[in-house]
Amino acid sequence: MCPANMVSTDEKKQDSSIKKQQPLQIINLDQGDPTMFVEYWKKSGEKSSIMIPGWHNLSYFPNNNGGNVCWFLEKEFSDEVKKLHESVGNAITKDRYIVVGTGSTQLYQAALFALTSTDDDDSSSKPMDVVSAVPYYSSYPAVTDLLKSRLYKWGGDAYEFDDKNEPYIEVVCSPNNPDGHTMEPVVNGKGGKLIYDLAYYWPQYTPITKPAEHDIMLFTVSKSTGHAGTRVGWAIVKDEKIARKMTKFIELSTIGVSKDSQYRAATIMRAVTESGQSISLQLAGNFFEFGKTIMVDRWERLRKVAAENGVFSLPKYPKQYCNYFGEIREAHPGFAWLKCNLENVEDCESLIKGNLKILVRGGKNFGMDNKKYVRISLLDQEDKFQILLDRLATVSSASTKIKA
Amino acid sequence: MCPANMVSTDEKKQDSSIKKQQPLQIINLDQGDPTMFVEYWKKSGEKSSIMIPGWHNLSYFPNNNGGNVCWFLEKEFSDEVKKLHESVGNAITKDRYIVVGTGSTQLYQAALFALTSTDDDDSSSKPMDVVSAVPYYSSYPAVTDLLKSRLYKWGGDAYEFDDKNEPYIEVVCSPNNPDGHTMEPVVNGKGGKLIYDLAYYWPQYTPITKPAEHDIMLFTVSKSTGHAGTRVGWAIVKDEKIARKMTKFIELSTIGVSKDSQYRAATIMRAVTESGQSISLQLAGNFFEFGKTIMVDRWERLRKVAAENGVFSLPKYPKQYCNYFGEIREAHPGFAWLKCNLENVEDCESLIKGNLKILVRGGKNFGMDNKKYVRISLLDQEDKFQILLDRLATVSSASTKIKA
Repeated sequence: MCPANMVSTDEKKQDSSIKKQQPLQIINLDQGDPTMFVEYWKKSGEKSSIMIPGWHNLSYFPNNNGGNVCWFLEKEFSDEVKKLHESVGNAITKDRYIVVGTGSTQLYQAALFALTSTDDDDSSSKPMDVVSAVPYYSSYPAVTDLLKSRLYKWGGDAYEFDDKNEPYIEVVCSPNNPDGHTMEPVVNGKGGKLIYDLAYYWPQYTPITKPAEHDIMLFTVSKSTGHAGTRVGWAIVKDEKIARKMTKFIELSTIGVSKDSQYRAATIMRAVTESGQSISLQLAGNFFEFGKTIMVDRWERLRKVAAENGVFSLPKYPKQYCNYFGEIREAHPGFAWLKCNLENVEDCESLIKGNLKILVRGGKNFGMDNKKYVRISLLDQEDKFQILLDRLATVSSASTKIKA
Repeated sequence: MCPANMVSTDEKKQDSSIKKQQPLQIINLDQGDPTMFVEYWKKSGEKSSIMIPGWHNLSYFPNNNGGNVCWFLEKEFSDEVKKLHESVGNAITKDRYIVVGTGSTQLYQAALFALTSTDDDDSSSKPMDVVSAVPYYSSYPAVTDLLKSRLYKWGGDAYEFDDKNEPYIEVVCSPNNPDGHTMEPVVNGKGGKLIYDLAYYWPQYTPITKPAEHDIMLFTVSKSTGHAGTRVGWAIVKDEKIARKMTKFIELSTIGVSKDSQYRAATIMRAVTESGQSISLQLAGNFFEFGKTIMVDRWERLRKVAAENGVFSLPKYPKQYCNYFGEIREAHPGFAWLKCNLENVEDCESLIKGNLKILVRGGKNFGMDNKKYVRISLLDQEDKFQILLDRLATVSSASTKIKA
């Protein structure tokens, strides 16, 4: 899934206009806009391109559904989902149902609906609590409470949840957005139902230690291949009834998912799978190798800046064996969960936004009381990342520039 | 907007398997699946095709937003929306805001959200009633009550709504799905807010008598150009605050709308607009002329069958001057709202499903108590339409085959 509180192009333009008065251009690293893969896709050429004639994809129904429970799912898309997971080894798809969604944000809501809706219309029934461990992905609360549903409501930090005998839903985001750590459920109550948001469980970001095999798992092309604009995600679901209810939600919410996007995503995923199978034949090389190389490089440079000025600290990740790359490695997440250690700075977001003119997302959005944390996207293009480093390097504990 | 209660390909396949025991193959005319335009789009060739390289549309943000309030809207899409309306003369877009949605179903929900959400979190506040005149589009109730929102709830038939001093929302679907009539608001209470669903206000279906200029108007490529699988619709909104709230809903619901689909829809709409401007240059001819010709032909053949056997009656539409075609004509809607006049038949849906093996949608789905009405899609391909006629022709008041 991805960030809410989107800053529009207009606002970005307004921001850049401030340049006239300000010495620094405003850089937006608030969203996790995964544009860093653009060079890979430029090299991939025809393999990742699609042509759609005007008479294709007219119907609401798939060209070939392949007997899937999700009636609007194109078989070609689900086939490529399965092949990609098989080749990466990050999730079990055998004997599971694939549900396609307009990004994993829609699938998250479909899962909430599927886990809470009943056939009876008991208006007095209490909405089910939806919780996630702090720091949790900043969009969960707003998306959950969007329509003030009587089916479910945002219940906050999973660590604080104490109504453990009642039914509840825990969202487990692993690797976690914002902090990159591998997560397990924390409530472990009797009535718990789990949704696993695995948007970042891909080899460019983290060691693939085993194929995930949870009841409901969410993935998205936004973060796996970098095609956020295509708005396609998928759920891997164990229980047929849940898959049917999720399908019903998406049917009533948007009458299915763009077929154009499903075909495009299938083409892109096929290119990724094949790039890992026959590296030497691919002009662009192994996609995940490309992604990992960038992430490792960025984390090394970022950690160097943090070590040199001593102002910021970053999470440490355990070394684990990655089945995909066949090596011991640590995580190199898509976001930096940065802590500001300056004693005279209470609010790290204000420091970085105000002094460094870099838009980042403050800890409070992720349920943190401590304002010393911010999330910074590392998924943008190289020029912006270099500006981030340059500006972070200007901050020192002795700096007189800090006005925060 | 379009039909819920979708019958999946699988179910269709199961249906056809019944053929072994049954003399008649089951034909699905339940949904308004607009595939009848396929021949036009085949002829249109390159003009309606798009090619998307793998490195395009990576970002959540538009390539060019053009300063629109809706931050995920591609300017190319909104430009083509405006040109199309300008060339058809069916809606005012000047000084209005365009909001793009994943089909008009999502825009309907975005409008409900925008008209009912407030900044305060008063959980005791009563959900606002959403009403529409019977027979109303069959998906409105289920879509409205999907998440049992505390913001709004389905209130049923607008003719029966008597809480006129309270705030309410009336959905005006014009031409109306299912019966094809031009509609006006019927409640006309003090606190009323209106959503106009104008999915069928296009020259192939109905005379274009004037440009619509309501506060919130919904359109979709599904019914205008026949590209249901692309899942793209748009709202034309007068009030900036409403447009912003609708944008917020779609941001939280699906983080925008597929850019691939927006570009495809822009290309298709450009082809339609240009086809009307220079007919002689277009291999495929004027798109709306193509559509109208089919619809006129189908209605003539359908009315002939109904007149010959005397069993079914169809709505009558007034003759009106159509600004687009510059002629006096009547409506030729995308659905037949058929009434069964057989005295011994109470349930027309069962008759047509059971005896004729044609899947249609019964009147109760549209809020009608009278079971003598059914909605039949006229938007499917010619072979299915001909089967419909053949089977309707077999029914007569003297027929002994009727088992309903």
